[in-house]
Amino acid sequence: MVGNSNRVDTFETIKIQPEIPMFQSPFEIHKVRLPPQRTTLQKLRLRLSEIFFPDDPFHGFKNQTWIIKFLLALQYLFPIFQWGPQYNLKLLRSDIVSGLTIASLAIPQGISYAKLANLPPIIGLYSSFVPALIYSILGSSKHLAVGPVSIASLVMGSMLSESVSYNQDPILYLKLAFTSTLFAGLFQASLGVLRLGFVIDFLSKATLVGFMAGAAIIVSLQQLKGLLGILHFTNKMQIVPVLASVFKQRDEWSWQTILLGISFLAFLLTTRHISMKKPKLFWISAAAPLTSVILSTILVFSMRHKIHKIAIIGELPKGINPPSSNMLFFNGPYLALAIKTGLVSGILSLTEGIAVGRTFASLRNYQVDGNKEMMAIGLMNIAGPCCSCYVTTGSFSRSAVNYNAGAQTAVSNIIMASAVLVTLLFLMPLFYYTPNVILAAIIITAVIGLIDFQVAYKLWKVDKLDFLACLCSFFGVLFISVPIGLGIAVAISVFKILLHVSRPNTLVLGNIPGTPIFHNLNQYKDALRIPSFIILAVESPIYFANATYLQERILRWVREEEEYVKANNGSMLKCVILDMTAVTDIDTNGIDTLCELRRRLEQKSLQLVLANPVGSVMEKLHESNILESFGMKGLYLSVGEAVADISSSWKAQP
Amino acid sequence: MVGNSNRVDTFETIKIQPEIPMFQSPFEIHKVRLPPQRTTLQKLRLRLSEIFFPDDPFHGFKNQTWIIKFLLALQYLFPIFQWGPQYNLKLLRSDIVSGLTIASLAIPQGISYAKLANLPPIIGLYSSFVPALIYSILGSSKHLAVGPVSIASLVMGSMLSESVSYNQDPILYLKLAFTSTLFAGLFQASLGVLRLGFVIDFLSKATLVGFMAGAAIIVSLQQLKGLLGILHFTNKMQIVPVLASVFKQRDEWSWQTILLGISFLAFLLTTRHISMKKPKLFWISAAAPLTSVILSTILVFSMRHKIHKIAIIGELPKGINPPSSNMLFFNGPYLALAIKTGLVSGILSLTEGIAVGRTFASLRNYQVDGNKEMMAIGLMNIAGPCCSCYVTTGSFSRSAVNYNAGAQTAVSNIIMASAVLVTLLFLMPLFYYTPNVILAAIIITAVIGLIDFQVAYKLWKVDKLDFLACLCSFFGVLFISVPIGLGIAVAISVFKILLHVSRPNTLVLGNIPGTPIFHNLNQYKDALRIPSFIILAVESPIYFANATYLQERILRWVREEEEYVKANNGSMLKCVILDMTAVTDIDTNGIDTLCELRRRLEQKSLQLVLANPVGSVMEKLHESNILESFGMKGLYLSVGEAVADISSSWKAQP
Repeated sequence: MVGNSNRVDTFETIKIQPEIPMFQSPFEIHKVRLPPQRTTLQKLRLRLSEIFFPDDPFHGFKNQTWIIKFLLALQYLFPIFQWGPQYNLKLLRSDIVSGLTIASLAIPQGISYAKLANLPPIIGLYSSFVPALIYSILGSSKHLAVGPVSIASLVMGSMLSESVSYNQDPILYLKLAFTSTLFAGLFQASLGVLRLGFVIDFLSKATLVGFMAGAAIIVSLQQLKGLLGILHFTNKMQIVPVLASVFKQRDEWSWQTILLGISFLAFLLTTRHISMKKPKLFWISAAAPLTSVILSTILVFSMRHKIHKIAIIGELPKGINPPSSNMLFFNGPYLALAIKTGLVSGILSLTEGIAVGRTFASLRNYQVDGNKEMMAIGLMNIAGPCCSCYVTTGSFSRSAVNYNAGAQTAVSNIIMASAVLVTLLFLMPLFYYTPNVILAAIIITAVIGLIDFQVAYKLWKVDKLDFLACLCSFFGVLFISVPIGLGIAVAISVFKILLHVSRPNTLVLGNIPGTPIFHNLNQYKDALRIPSFIILAVESPIYFANATYLQERILRWVREEEEYVKANNGSMLKCVILDMTAVTDIDTNGIDTLCELRRRLEQKSLQLVLANPVGSVMEKLHESNILESFGMKGLYLSVGEAVADISSSWKAQP
Repeated sequence: MVGNSNRVDTFETIKIQPEIPMFQSPFEIHKVRLPPQRTTLQKLRLRLSEIFFPDDPFHGFKNQTWIIKFLLALQYLFPIFQWGPQYNLKLLRSDIVSGLTIASLAIPQGISYAKLANLPPIIGLYSSFVPALIYSILGSSKHLAVGPVSIASLVMGSMLSESVSYNQDPILYLKLAFTSTLFAGLFQASLGVLRLGFVIDFLSKATLVGFMAGAAIIVSLQQLKGLLGILHFTNKMQIVPVLASVFKQRDEWSWQTILLGISFLAFLLTTRHISMKKPKLFWISAAAPLTSVILSTILVFSMRHKIHKIAIIGELPKGINPPSSNMLFFNGPYLALAIKTGLVSGILSLTEGIAVGRTFASLRNYQVDGNKEMMAIGLMNIAGPCCSCYVTTGSFSRSAVNYNAGAQTAVSNIIMASAVLVTLLFLMPLFYYTPNVILAAIIITAVIGLIDFQVAYKLWKVDKLDFLACLCSFFGVLFISVPIGLGIAVAISVFKILLHVSRPNTLVLGNIPGTPIFHNLNQYKDALRIPSFIILAVESPIYFANATYLQERILRWVREEEEYVKANNGSMLKCVILDMTAVTDIDTNGIDTLCELRRRLEQKSLQLVLANPVGSVMEKLHESNILESFGMKGLYLSVGEAVADISSSWKAQP
């Protein structure tokens, strides 16, 4: 009686059948049963627990003492208490190696992604420090490496830059970035607390594939600014103004910058290619960004008296994250923009973080709790903007490196944060001569991997409407804007569900000879029609959105069958069997439709029989008092029993 | 080979099984088949024809000569050519009786409903003339009686009055009313032409019940103006300002008006009650409005020198509908309001018209073509505003009277129009002394029947979420506004569909002893578990919206089963069977989920088996190349065959 909610609800011990059942004659007829009666309150409780607690998070808490319950709650809220006590030196060694490896990636990525969000580079380093510490305490994934990510940086940069330019008003821009991050965090944490994690499921894979490809193209084009050495560039993020800006400023192109950029881009892409071919050599692409930064900085430093045309990062402030809670604002004309940016970047970073966490957890066969992760990522982004961090989440590239480098626990995030701390305290002057073009090359290498032609082709092959959603989010992001592109794609995905419900399939079934199985005549060529019967399977819940359609469609099947029978001198149609197996729900419109259908068929002297109605449908038919009107001969447990019983009753009374 | 699209597609003759199948041993294993291969274009064509032409409107056109096709098309576009040739004197006699009966109802209703829309009474009579003639040519219903209706009049009046007052700017208000009607007609006709009739299905019964009850209360309260004789009344339609207005103007209450109003209201309600108890006496309530108008007019006329406090209709222009196409406008600040009002009143009048048409058609067992009706109603409302008519549709009360009075064809609409024409030409001066209060009483009697407590109680009993949608549209209309109330109710209905998809049921199945049938253990207490198996039925398509949930939920079922087995020393779990009968569709997220689930279960040394995947799911599994990975032992035609085959293979290799 442990844990199984279904079993607990029935208040009965389940008998186990001692051996494999032998199937006897189908002429023994079984009654269709109602599910066990429940009060409205019980039903509501069950329904709500299935909506909000499908993972049954408290099943370990049952039958425990108060002290153990308290300890379990502590472990539930702070997963560090779960794995902390078992932590040992061997694990630490692995974590130090992986932590230092991701730090070497985190420093150039932090600087680059901050530039992607039009923020000062140092913000990117700050954002790799505090959030990583918070995640190591709250996170339930062992392999997730947190920090700024390309998509969220891009979205924040693009949405804020449309209204405010960092160059014109840096303070306002920073305030907006921090406030948006706070709203992103509040949104993420509240999704976790309210257990509304399923909201992110509405960003389907198709939507995300299209979105990421579009975003990658936009970002790469934006990097042409750095790669070509252009000084005056558009703030807009759509493809048309960006390309226009690139070609309008042709006189600003600098061949030294282009040469440097192209060479390092080639280097980075080559290392990426090598690591993709041989996953064992992951460290080549992991080390490449830091190597490029070091090499290019030395190169520019050594030639600093000869070349002046290459833009460099310049002075970076030394020291740990300064507090920034005074930069947050909760009123004024830009509040709506901050909230909107927060929501969009929040939901995207959450999607990435959770997807990445789940991916690596499934590789090592452990569970990541979605709602807990939302709270962890949310708290990172609530605490972050109070100490100069912008939006962060679990990064795919860093987590992959972390996993490959042998990370064992979230301690690798602490090691990475320590390395970033050392950099912040002592190494900042070394980045003075780092050329901007190298950051552009790093960003392009990172985002180019987001374009996935293979998945897009598979979408086209498998599901055309999914492909359409993918295309819409791709072109929407490219030509309109990130939120509108995503909005259109989500609308198409939801429309697809509604279309499936409002125009469900109805199939004609036939019997597979020698079995009690009835199947779609179209799919199974050996299935045979039963004379005088037409057996229809409805493949959807019967709702207001399809009730009228289904009624007309079923009557059309009957009409066509009658015409066919007449044309072929077959035996006259006498009975319509509706296989209700896939009718998983019914509403009041649907019930009316069934009654109406029965009445219309009776006028044609046809009998309507329901086969295998599921529990919830039986309940509603019972509650609306129409079960009686169907009577004993109108409800059967399976199509086979219905056919056998009805035709034998015809034989009895010819 | 006639008419059955499914049969035509398979390009094969179907064999008919000569007699009832005998069910043999289940150990004969049947292969799961793919549906016949189709190209993308064929699939698209099939899908589109199912979406837009589910009724197969052209099935009569096949294999006909060009002349017959032309005649059929003429009959299709103008149903009058269908029934016209068979028209005879006997039918005409019935139609004259019913036409005159509905005319006696149409005249007072026309005047009253025009007042409900804050329009001059004469517009209501105009609107009962031209649209009725148009419908008699284009309509496919035999019993629908068209004219202005309460709901659409109310909606138009309320939406326009919020911005423009008829008393302050009558010309602008008239222009707005005609232009909105034109847009309503364009919207309705284009829904018909584009065959998008299913849009109106999204107004579920629950939504409409709540909406009509709310609208009835608002309208009745508005009529307190006429019933109490108040002169200065609010333009607003929400319950709070209306009640405030009633009590603020207490000094304007006139006891003579109240006395007259209450007596006639009692008379009308009594006749309505009698007709409801005895449907044979329908003519009592049908004649009551005209009787009341005549009686009260005579009463007021005879006492015209004694009482001055009773408001009367006054001068009405004589003559046929004046042209009004010069009143239509297509620009200016009020265009948005006209379009919005047109859309809302258009969709509501369409819903009423089609529902009423279908109701009476089903009583006499003939078909009403939804898309054709949309075109007919749309053309009524396109032509109407060019000759001083406002929005019209099929009226429930008039059609019921028409049906009961024995109408046989749409000629009864022509008779009614002729009677209205005579009234317009000669009888208008007779209405000079008709008191406004009698119109209020007629309106209240008409709308009070729209409040249906019984249906609301049934909604509560059968489906709580339907009841919630009903409540929301009720209170939304009462306290906010018609479009917002309806919008909330539609959103709840759609949310219900999405909720059902994003949190689908998963059931544990057991075998019903002595049969090959597997059923929900919770619903069937005699169903038995099969040792070493867990059989789960997923009751929904597997989509992006539920893929993650289903994966976690299925893994939780497996975990709970393992815990249960361990606690009870049962035989170890070896195989998970997913019954896919109700999984009517799958998308790319769903396919990934199946693969991931299979991998996760394999890590636990559990086998995943799919039973009975339907055609479209098989197709997608095949196209995404994952069928091979399931192999021969991973796909079965039914749960019974899967259990039998797998357990016998275990016995063979213990």
